[in-house]
Amino acid sequence: MNLINHQVRLAARPSGLPKASDWSFTEEPVPSPREGEFVVAISHISLDPAMRGWMNEGASYIDAVEIGAVMRAGAVGRVSASEHPGFAVGDHVYGALGVQEHALSDGNGVFKVDPTLAPLPTYLGTLGMTGLTAYFGMLDVGKLQEGDTVVVSGAAGAVGSVAGQIAKIKGARAIGIAGGEQKCRWLTEELGFDAAIDYKSEDLRRALRQHAPTGVDLYFDNVGGEILDAVLTRLARGARIVICGAVSQYNSSDGVRGPSNYLALLVARASMTGMVVFDYAARYAEAMGEIAGWMREGRLISREDVLDGGVSAFPQALLMLFAGENTGKLVLRAGPD
Amino acid sequence: MNLINHQVRLAARPSGLPKASDWSFTEEPVPSPREGEFVVAISHISLDPAMRGWMNEGASYIDAVEIGAVMRAGAVGRVSASEHPGFAVGDHVYGALGVQEHALSDGNGVFKVDPTLAPLPTYLGTLGMTGLTAYFGMLDVGKLQEGDTVVVSGAAGAVGSVAGQIAKIKGARAIGIAGGEQKCRWLTEELGFDAAIDYKSEDLRRALRQHAPTGVDLYFDNVGGEILDAVLTRLARGARIVICGAVSQYNSSDGVRGPSNYLALLVARASMTGMVVFDYAARYAEAMGEIAGWMREGRLISREDVLDGGVSAFPQALLMLFAGENTGKLVLRAGPD
Repeated sequence: MNLINHQVRLAARPSGLPKASDWSFTEEPVPSPREGEFVVAISHISLDPAMRGWMNEGASYIDAVEIGAVMRAGAVGRVSASEHPGFAVGDHVYGALGVQEHALSDGNGVFKVDPTLAPLPTYLGTLGMTGLTAYFGMLDVGKLQEGDTVVVSGAAGAVGSVAGQIAKIKGARAIGIAGGEQKCRWLTEELGFDAAIDYKSEDLRRALRQHAPTGVDLYFDNVGGEILDAVLTRLARGARIVICGAVSQYNSSDGVRGPSNYLALLVARASMTGMVVFDYAARYAEAMGEIAGWMREGRLISREDVLDGGVSAFPQALLMLFAGENTGKLVLRAGPD
Repeated sequence: MNLINHQVRLAARPSGLPKASDWSFTEEPVPSPREGEFVVAISHISLDPAMRGWMNEGASYIDAVEIGAVMRAGAVGRVSASEHPGFAVGDHVYGALGVQEHALSDGNGVFKVDPTLAPLPTYLGTLGMTGLTAYFGMLDVGKLQEGDTVVVSGAAGAVGSVAGQIAKIKGARAIGIAGGEQKCRWLTEELGFDAAIDYKSEDLRRALRQHAPTGVDLYFDNVGGEILDAVLTRLARGARIVICGAVSQYNSSDGVRGPSNYLALLVARASMTGMVVFDYAARYAEAMGEIAGWMREGRLISREDVLDGGVSAFPQALLMLFAGENTGKLVLRAGPD
């Protein structure tokens, strides 16, 4: 057992894309649990666009990560020492354990996962916050209906790839927007999307007219910016837009670009609604059960893009995420399973 | 009886604020009704921010006014000649009769109004589309609840002044945003708003913090632009924003400014929904009955700002509307009652 805990801490609040100097790397002895605590040896760390927001000062849906603190991250791992009655050595768990190799926990917000049902990284993706975000975003916020024409941006990403597959499972037509031919082929050939639009090489508005000739009933937006503005021009009457994120805007150093076509909401009698998955915590178990069922039946494909390199590769991995280099859920391996 | 019908027609599609050269003035003989038709001698013409949108080319919630056509406008008047079984000479009517002194109609979209219950201009305002927009916007789209903190922009305007009063009638707290001390005093001293913010002289964000310390539950937006962005920073959890219009943006010649703070929808789990009053046509009668009842009980004050000058004053009157010079519903007198 490694007696040193390598950690990645927030050293400064970034302007634009996080730079090397925004991070610091620390080493500490692996902590020992006191009564009511346990230690997790982290195997995989989740990379999420939302992390960029957590690095900013100011009020949001969750407190900012403090300067000098271990960077917040969802992670999975194995309990290596325990003085907690609910967690035994050898248990596999998920929690917001941070970008480090070992985490001390009192069990708050930590729950057990079963590595015999799915690989551990899947609990950071389709069977984790990512899948739950897609699930509640599509079904509760987006009020997905059979027969809807659904557009998903960031469609080859962790949340988007699940959101589009849920649209298909529920009998809707799914159109994915992604960057690059390879991602687009994955969406249509492997995930069963009805169409995919490569925003890097296609005329987005023309492609939307072609693939959504009667308009878009439900738009699940992960990206914001120009893509949101383009979809706003194609809304069907009564359309719903789910604002899950705006990855195109998080690293902008000259402010967020607002959707200048927002008056299309009026023309289409449409709505745009923001969501945060934490609001649905009481229903996580129910949703995970349904998602796991779809995976077992082969109707929902989960893909994780697992990077090696350990926690010190975290800053680089985050930049890969913002550059859209991942397909599916981007995960960093931090240690053995 | 005047045998000449003076008309105002759209001569060109404006860029920015409509100019004199965007209009033409024509004279025609007053038409004679054929079987199934009648003629209305128009007394009052409605001035609405939405008119600016009708002058633009392109698809919207209603067809654009064609170049050379009489400008579209809601109007009230008296039937002066009729070959229609449903409308008799002397009946007072409302309809989209246009910016002219006399209108020929087949009765489509025209309904009778009773000048003994309310002055004719009130049927263009609180008992007309204006009041109905406020009613359905607040109650149906905005889902107004007792105890809500409600903010209304353009609060001294036709729709806003009714929207804020409906908030009060339903037991909510009403904060109006308007331009100028006089309008603000009218809101608090005569209409019973709990607070009014003069966006021309006050720091809007600070005033919102002061008057809505627990956040804004319902925002009824008539103006867009900076005011929408400011209110977005003050949303309560689960807030609803009703997009009724964006008068600050209609005359922009360099495009609409999108709300750059729209990601506040995510933080607040809030929604922004567009509305068009025409969707509620089946419930107009029910709503008008309720509004008329509030007026009779003295709980809802209707104010019309009636300009003289006849139809030729229409271009100038429209500019007054966009300059925010009116308090209450701006109406142009086109002829005798």
